[in-house]
Amino acid sequence: MLSEDLPKIWYGGDYNPEQWDAATMEEDLRMFRLAGIDVVTINVFSWAKSQRDEHTFDFSWLDSIMNRLEQDHMRVCLATSTGAHPAWMAKKYPDILRVDYQGRQRKFGGRHNSCPNSPTYRTYSVMMAAKLAERYKDHPMLAAWHIANEYGGYCYCDRCEAEFRVWLEQRYGTLEKLNTAWNTAFWGHTFYAWDEIVVPNELSEEWGGNQTYFQGISLDYRRFQSDSLLACYQLEYEQLKKVTPNIPITTNMMGTYPELDYFKWAKYMDVISWDNYPTMDMPVSMTSMTHDLMRGLKSGQPFMLMEQTPSQQNWQAYNALKRPGVMRLWSYQAVAHGADTVMFFQLRRSIGACEKYHGAVIEHVGHEHTRVFRETAALGKELQQVGNALIDSRSRNRVAIMFDWENRWAVELSSGPSVALNYVDEVHKYYDALYQLNMGTDMISVEESLDAYDLVIAPVMYMLKPGFAKRIESFVARGGTFVTTFFSGIVNEHDLVTLGGYPGELRNVLGIWAEEIDALYPGQTNSIVFTQELGSLQGSYPCGILCDIIHAEHAEVLAEYGADFYRGTPALTRNYFGKGQAYYVASSPNDVFLQGLLKQLCTEQGIKPLLNTPSGVEVSERVKGNTSYLFVLNHNHDNMTIPWNDEPRHDILTGQTITSELSIAGRGVMILEGTLN
Amino acid sequence: MLSEDLPKIWYGGDYNPEQWDAATMEEDLRMFRLAGIDVVTINVFSWAKSQRDEHTFDFSWLDSIMNRLEQDHMRVCLATSTGAHPAWMAKKYPDILRVDYQGRQRKFGGRHNSCPNSPTYRTYSVMMAAKLAERYKDHPMLAAWHIANEYGGYCYCDRCEAEFRVWLEQRYGTLEKLNTAWNTAFWGHTFYAWDEIVVPNELSEEWGGNQTYFQGISLDYRRFQSDSLLACYQLEYEQLKKVTPNIPITTNMMGTYPELDYFKWAKYMDVISWDNYPTMDMPVSMTSMTHDLMRGLKSGQPFMLMEQTPSQQNWQAYNALKRPGVMRLWSYQAVAHGADTVMFFQLRRSIGACEKYHGAVIEHVGHEHTRVFRETAALGKELQQVGNALIDSRSRNRVAIMFDWENRWAVELSSGPSVALNYVDEVHKYYDALYQLNMGTDMISVEESLDAYDLVIAPVMYMLKPGFAKRIESFVARGGTFVTTFFSGIVNEHDLVTLGGYPGELRNVLGIWAEEIDALYPGQTNSIVFTQELGSLQGSYPCGILCDIIHAEHAEVLAEYGADFYRGTPALTRNYFGKGQAYYVASSPNDVFLQGLLKQLCTEQGIKPLLNTPSGVEVSERVKGNTSYLFVLNHNHDNMTIPWNDEPRHDILTGQTITSELSIAGRGVMILEGTLN
Amino acid sequence: MLSEDLPKIWYGGDYNPEQWDAATMEEDLRMFRLAGIDVVTINVFSWAKSQRDEHTFDFSWLDSIMNRLEQDHMRVCLATSTGAHPAWMAKKYPDILRVDYQGRQRKFGGRHNSCPNSPTYRTYSVMMAAKLAERYKDHPMLAAWHIANEYGGYCYCDRCEAEFRVWLEQRYGTLEKLNTAWNTAFWGHTFYAWDEIVVPNELSEEWGGNQTYFQGISLDYRRFQSDSLLACYQLEYEQLKKVTPNIPITTNMMGTYPELDYFKWAKYMDVISWDNYPTMDMPVSMTSMTHDLMRGLKSGQPFMLMEQTPSQQNWQAYNALKRPGVMRLWSYQAVAHGADTVMFFQLRRSIGACEKYHGAVIEHVGHEHTRVFRETAALGKELQQVGNALIDSRSRNRVAIMFDWENRWAVELSSGPSVALNYVDEVHKYYDALYQLNMGTDMISVEESLDAYDLVIAPVMYMLKPGFAKRIESFVARGGTFVTTFFSGIVNEHDLVTLGGYPGELRNVLGIWAEEIDALYPGQTNSIVFTQELGSLQGSYPCGILCDIIHAEHAEVLAEYGADFYRGTPALTRNYFGKGQAYYVASSPNDVFLQGLLKQLCTEQGIKPLLNTPSGVEVSERVKGNTSYLFVLNHNHDNMTIPWNDEPRHDILTGQTITSELSIAGRGVMILEGTLN
Repeated sequence: MLSEDLPKIWYGGDYNPEQWDAATMEEDLRMFRLAGIDVVTINVFSWAKSQRDEHTFDFSWLDSIMNRLEQDHMRVCLATSTGAHPAWMAKKYPDILRVDYQGRQRKFGGRHNSCPNSPTYRTYSVMMAAKLAERYKDHPMLAAWHIANEYGGYCYCDRCEAEFRVWLEQRYGTLEKLNTAWNTAFWGHTFYAWDEIVVPNELSEEWGGNQTYFQGISLDYRRFQSDSLLACYQLEYEQLKKVTPNIPITTNMMGTYPELDYFKWAKYMDVISWDNYPTMDMPVSMTSMTHDLMRGLKSGQPFMLMEQTPSQQNWQAYNALKRPGVMRLWSYQAVAHGADTVMFFQLRRSIGACEKYHGAVIEHVGHEHTRVFRETAALGKELQQVGNALIDSRSRNRVAIMFDWENRWAVELSSGPSVALNYVDEVHKYYDALYQLNMGTDMISVEESLDAYDLVIAPVMYMLKPGFAKRIESFVARGGTFVTTFFSGIVNEHDLVTLGGYPGELRNVLGIWAEEIDALYPGQTNSIVFTQELGSLQGSYPCGILCDIIHAEHAEVLAEYGADFYRGTPALTRNYFGKGQAYYVASSPNDVFLQGLLKQLCTEQGIKPLLNTPSGVEVSERVKGNTSYLFVLNHNHDNMTIPWNDEPRHDILTGQTITSELSIAGRGVMILEGTLN
Repeated sequence: MLSEDLPKIWYGGDYNPEQWDAATMEEDLRMFRLAGIDVVTINVFSWAKSQRDEHTFDFSWLDSIMNRLEQDHMRVCLATSTGAHPAWMAKKYPDILRVDYQGRQRKFGGRHNSCPNSPTYRTYSVMMAAKLAERYKDHPMLAAWHIANEYGGYCYCDRCEAEFRVWLEQRYGTLEKLNTAWNTAFWGHTFYAWDEIVVPNELSEEWGGNQTYFQGISLDYRRFQSDSLLACYQLEYEQLKKVTPNIPITTNMMGTYPELDYFKWAKYMDVISWDNYPTMDMPVSMTSMTHDLMRGLKSGQPFMLMEQTPSQQNWQAYNALKRPGVMRLWSYQAVAHGADTVMFFQLRRSIGACEKYHGAVIEHVGHEHTRVFRETAALGKELQQVGNALIDSRSRNRVAIMFDWENRWAVELSSGPSVALNYVDEVHKYYDALYQLNMGTDMISVEESLDAYDLVIAPVMYMLKPGFAKRIESFVARGGTFVTTFFSGIVNEHDLVTLGGYPGELRNVLGIWAEEIDALYPGQTNSIVFTQELGSLQGSYPCGILCDIIHAEHAEVLAEYGADFYRGTPALTRNYFGKGQAYYVASSPNDVFLQGLLKQLCTEQGIKPLLNTPSGVEVSERVKGNTSYLFVLNHNHDNMTIPWNDEPRHDILTGQTITSELSIAGRGVMILEGTLN
Repeated sequence: MLSEDLPKIWYGGDYNPEQWDAATMEEDLRMFRLAGIDVVTINVFSWAKSQRDEHTFDFSWLDSIMNRLEQDHMRVCLATSTGAHPAWMAKKYPDILRVDYQGRQRKFGGRHNSCPNSPTYRTYSVMMAAKLAERYKDHPMLAAWHIANEYGGYCYCDRCEAEFRVWLEQRYGTLEKLNTAWNTAFWGHTFYAWDEIVVPNELSEEWGGNQTYFQGISLDYRRFQSDSLLACYQLEYEQLKKVTPNIPITTNMMGTYPELDYFKWAKYMDVISWDNYPTMDMPVSMTSMTHDLMRGLKSGQPFMLMEQTPSQQNWQAYNALKRPGVMRLWSYQAVAHGADTVMFFQLRRSIGACEKYHGAVIEHVGHEHTRVFRETAALGKELQQVGNALIDSRSRNRVAIMFDWENRWAVELSSGPSVALNYVDEVHKYYDALYQLNMGTDMISVEESLDAYDLVIAPVMYMLKPGFAKRIESFVARGGTFVTTFFSGIVNEHDLVTLGGYPGELRNVLGIWAEEIDALYPGQTNSIVFTQELGSLQGSYPCGILCDIIHAEHAEVLAEYGADFYRGTPALTRNYFGKGQAYYVASSPNDVFLQGLLKQLCTEQGIKPLLNTPSGVEVSERVKGNTSYLFVLNHNHDNMTIPWNDEPRHDILTGQTITSELSIAGRGVMILEGTLN
């Protein structure tokens, strides 16, 4: 639990009183009370305010704010303010400035702007964390630490280059091993001294962000930069932990953000927090998947929804408003998937600079008589009523989808077979099928224990880490169902191909050999034709992007390609292995195929939908002790009526009891409490 | 009047005899005479020719040309040749070279290539202007000065950075005020010393040309660079003025060119001149709007059409030819909107380099037996017949549209709500509606006196300068009609939001509050539905881009939104204020709506069309004393017949008198002279 | 003939045993034997392996490989390994690194990475060539030299700048001549000292790759860089030639690669070789055209197909597999057009880095039981049966199309009239028409003797070199038919316009004057309307991109424009000149027009199709002594039956004799041997 002291869904968000005068803060606090807000994140971007040169620290302004907040019993998620460095620091210690992907030395500006290997940055950010910890360790409002802000971006400076070589030497020990791992014999890139290695960017091995001549160095640089930023985080973490061992520490993540290996980061976080900024035209299931991924970072532990907009964003091309009810609906969507907080960026809109058209609880008009405020306040009141019911509840899903950042990097860095292949989208196709079926799903790391699961899906599992294949074999052998796809099992963690036939180490459990991989042009499709019925699946389904041309060795062929020269060769196979089964989906199919397939696999494993609902009505479950909370989320504009055939449950939001059917308003939410047998 | 000495529409253009031998010049002059050309712009790009090193000046070549021109009584618009610096200067004094938006130190090349804060550039450009003024001050052919050429482009070098800090210190006095104006508390960008401030480009706060983290610094940098280039202009201006106080001085502008605040520049110009290069697929009303804007730069004073192509351009993607008659038609379009000259780039095509496929009076074939020459010569003869009739005539429009470069910068720099919002296009929508109605319109600055106007339109008046709202209130109070739109009144000149509810200082006169701003996706529309008839307006009209969600406080609701959650809320309001009315158009409507609305507002103010014409027939008026010249311009390919219900007028081009109807040829022009009552 | 010692179509490809262990090489050799492979290209990227620092050379590894290859009688195309420099060299001698088009100093990475004017590169690449020549001069397997690899890319460093000035001084002698050639009077770019000239890239005169302010300097820089790389090649060539005068030397070219003037390079090559990488959706006639161009580089001498993929590429966006039979079909397509080798990149797929998903004879699975291997081995066996039949056979075409790299550069660098104009595409339109007609065609340089030809086509011959027009006049005068198009004859080799009317020096032979050039918008068309029948041509045909508006002076008008203000003016003209005719096609027509026109012109010259075939069946001929080999290539998926009305011939692949009709399988090939009368 985040805090014994505030045993409810935390409600609040980012607040920047340093941008305003004292009278405005009084007015803000009045409105926070009206809105049921009980937690504020402060000090996010105040480094320059608290430290005006290398010797002068002044926290008096923060003392005042902390004390004023205390008067209103407003808990504080206290940021360390190291998400953007002060201008004076950039001038005096230019080592803090990054060099960008184009090889350009940057000047002061923006945020995400500190070189993670800058001695200046590390020295002063740690000093700041230490001072804040000492100063506020006993403050009664201190509820959580928020280190820096949305870590991200890479640096390519000379110091990073030097540190990269050190990192490589630690990883590989010898240049011989490095040369082997990167296959530098190709194009004669053999290194004879560590300092011959340069950072991979547009001046050397890469271009266009994700294109590279050498996957090995590019993969390692992503690992190194993720580690470098993580090291910055860890240095602050240690300072804070030393002084306030009982205060939870986090940094706000960004869902499927590509640049950081969040599974590795999660190990060093007390609680996961993240910022949820879907576009208005993104499928809602993508949001649910991302929530589940954030929950999966720490094996199911509830997370903080650290930021969302109450109304609109500003950095999209077209910043549509959240329609009435959508903010509440999406807030509960987060809770349904494991959030124990509902927090906003931002509580008050800034008056100037680039985020002033980002929505806020308090708009520029400054009063509470706005649609956005009314919706915010209504939710705040409702969350107070919900109280501690949901806090620290968990999921009990038997289906898991694997997600892996290193695999993603490798897929994105691959030269060929197709630029149409997008790892996150392929994962989402499988997630969405389960989502439409209301099958509760966990998003897990490739290192997660599989003991709890009966169905494990690993789409485009291109890179296999050591031991992975054996763990899958054990999982299947003991009765599990495993599903993987085309372009899986190809390489090891250095992006070196596993020779002897694709899908490499997975050939044993899958019972197939993939001889060739065909890439389809945009608009071009093949089809997957069933040779026998499989659950609801029969006949033909379109597929595309890549078509693995495979041979069933030990596997059974369930469906074949319907066209082209590989017509009649296997497109879907099942291999019985021990007590379980392993499926190979050789191309990228459509939603009907995937829903049919996954429904069948769930049925075989005795996994049932949480509820049968019409399209657009999402269902998710959280469990606490023997109490089940079934969230019903109506993403449709219109009311929906849904048959209820289970034991009666009552909706903790309205108190109403559901017996034979439930009627849910457009964009409505129900949380149906029931007792597990 | 430009010159007592040549009291007619000047006819001629850019001429570069330094690219050719003497025999060619003789042949050129023969053809100039054939074409009725009486003014040539020379010396535009001859800096390197006149000054081959820092100590050696040689104007003998120019003397010869000036003297030869005198023999043919050819007036000279004499350029100062500082539009591109010599190669030797770039080598010897690299401070003259610019640093670009990407932060790269440029080498010698192109034009627009001098750093405006380069001591070398300022020293040598002023020296050149002084020498030219002294040398040719008494030359009988000297008719006008043409400083540099098409000023434009920004520099981001270290000197500009240093000068920017000086400029800022002059503007703000203290860093406290600057920090407030830029809201640097956001993201902790507080400056504690002037030299912490760096230029905003892709290495610091900006990217993509118009995207920025801090609107304040980016706005100020645009002002600073516009001022820096203006300072270069002014330094030359002062030299020339000192020596030849009676010769008009100009520099050629570029219409709606984004980078310079032409209203500020216009104050330091004796006469406006500009280069008109529409693409063939641009609406002709955009050209008219731009002419009117150029006329508005100096409150209605006639301007010089300094450049246009006789046939085709070279730098467009697809350089279509001007169809037969179009050059004449567009030349008169310029005159109709205030031009007192018709000049071409270029009189002779160059033999090499990037503009050799740009049209010219004398083509590469070198003789006069070309379509282009024939059309040019016919127009030259016609303009000689027109004589001084139109010279120095003015407009007498009662409708004005406001245009403001600083506002435009702020709109373009805004992060959110929508990338689809284009300031010039929104202004043009209103202009085009009036254009289709044949309502004569002035394009004015936000500082222009409104005394002459009864209808003033300020589309997307996002940034309000000090005193603006009060002046609008006075205008409306005394009986004027004011129209503004969504996304108006939001910020002050620092791009800081006016708190207390949009549209800020305009709330009083408009009687509304805009609570939220919705951004529509491409292809998405809402509708504006009239609750009562307004002139020809009734029923429903599509709208898009942004939808302000507004509350009518004192205002009357004339139309509502037809869809979405804000259906039924006001989309068009009218506020009676004093003796006048203020309208708010809450979204971006279509052409039918705007023509209906503006026709109604004109009617209410007793403003009538100049003439009723079929589509494609433009009408514009110039007035001199009590004589009215009504220009009728048929942009259609086919002949048109138009009823004439006014007093008879005669066409000064043909001498024919119009009594009951006028018949105008395809792409034809009439200039109907009449006497004002 | 490439080698008396291996008198057959060489079969093999790039092989990199240095990436593998000895056991793998044994297995590879076993499979090479199975596949009928007799030539391997080795040592392409082994510089770093053979030279680990400036003093240490170690060829023992290469000795072992050469000796092991000898055991299997495997001939070696021995590369000099200078296509990518070692990392140690880049660190120690950074002068070897390029500066890119954006002006950025590159670091170590990629290939194509050596500055061609780097003293280090020249010193060490020549040293390497010399050492290899000395070491392997007597090796019995040495069959050919392969210098570097796919030369390409430009450098913009300070040394290149200095060398460029030297090159210019040699070319022009005086700055006066250079200033004239570049028309630097335009924009006042006059140079007074050689060191004022800077390289033309994005920091000076160019942008976007092919856009420039000064065509003169940009053209010369392309010539200079092409020459600089050629000089690197020549330095190695001389070393090799000195030691092994009888071993043919080549470097692998890339078809219509834009950056190098291959006609100039060809003079210094013993044999042309090239790498054929069509995309799957490119017209097959483009491949044929490129083969013919490569054959034309050395006036018809057979060339080496140095690289093609056996299955798929990796660097395309969508890397589709070559369908079954396509690899064989396209291999014979190369032979049909003059290849005396069929070689692959690559014989074995690498295990890591960016080309691991490029197809190979030996796939990652490592064994021979793959579709790709089976197809490769079948072709290997077939080529052994074909033996020496085709070796050194030639073409005997009477139709030629001109292609010129300098002309192409000039067209691409032109500012206006239209970005839609693509030189290679326009050439291909004419080639494709002849291809569809089965008219054997040579692709020739503008310097090639025209004695052998009766029909010569020079599409978009924008730049005329000295003497060219006179040679065309002689060709036509003696009875030849010449065809050229819009935008021809405009400039000289400095891109200076030939004054006096387009098409300049070609006006005499064409009998026309092009007064204006109209550029059409995308989607816009005009039409070419015949005023009389011309062969199968009658009525109207669409045309676009550019429309020259021409006057027939001595020429006859065959067709006119059908629309716009130049309706009725000539669109196709014929001029009788001496005993021949010269045609001018004033716009870019469609395929039906071009096939009709070229069929008629061939008929008039008594040139007959090689064979009449249905669409998709390509025919090409090679001749040796009085033996004709007619290649019939069925690019269709389905079988085709074709009437045969000639003397019986037998297919050297199957031995079958064709008498009255031939039936060819889908993607099938026949090589019909016959005796010339």
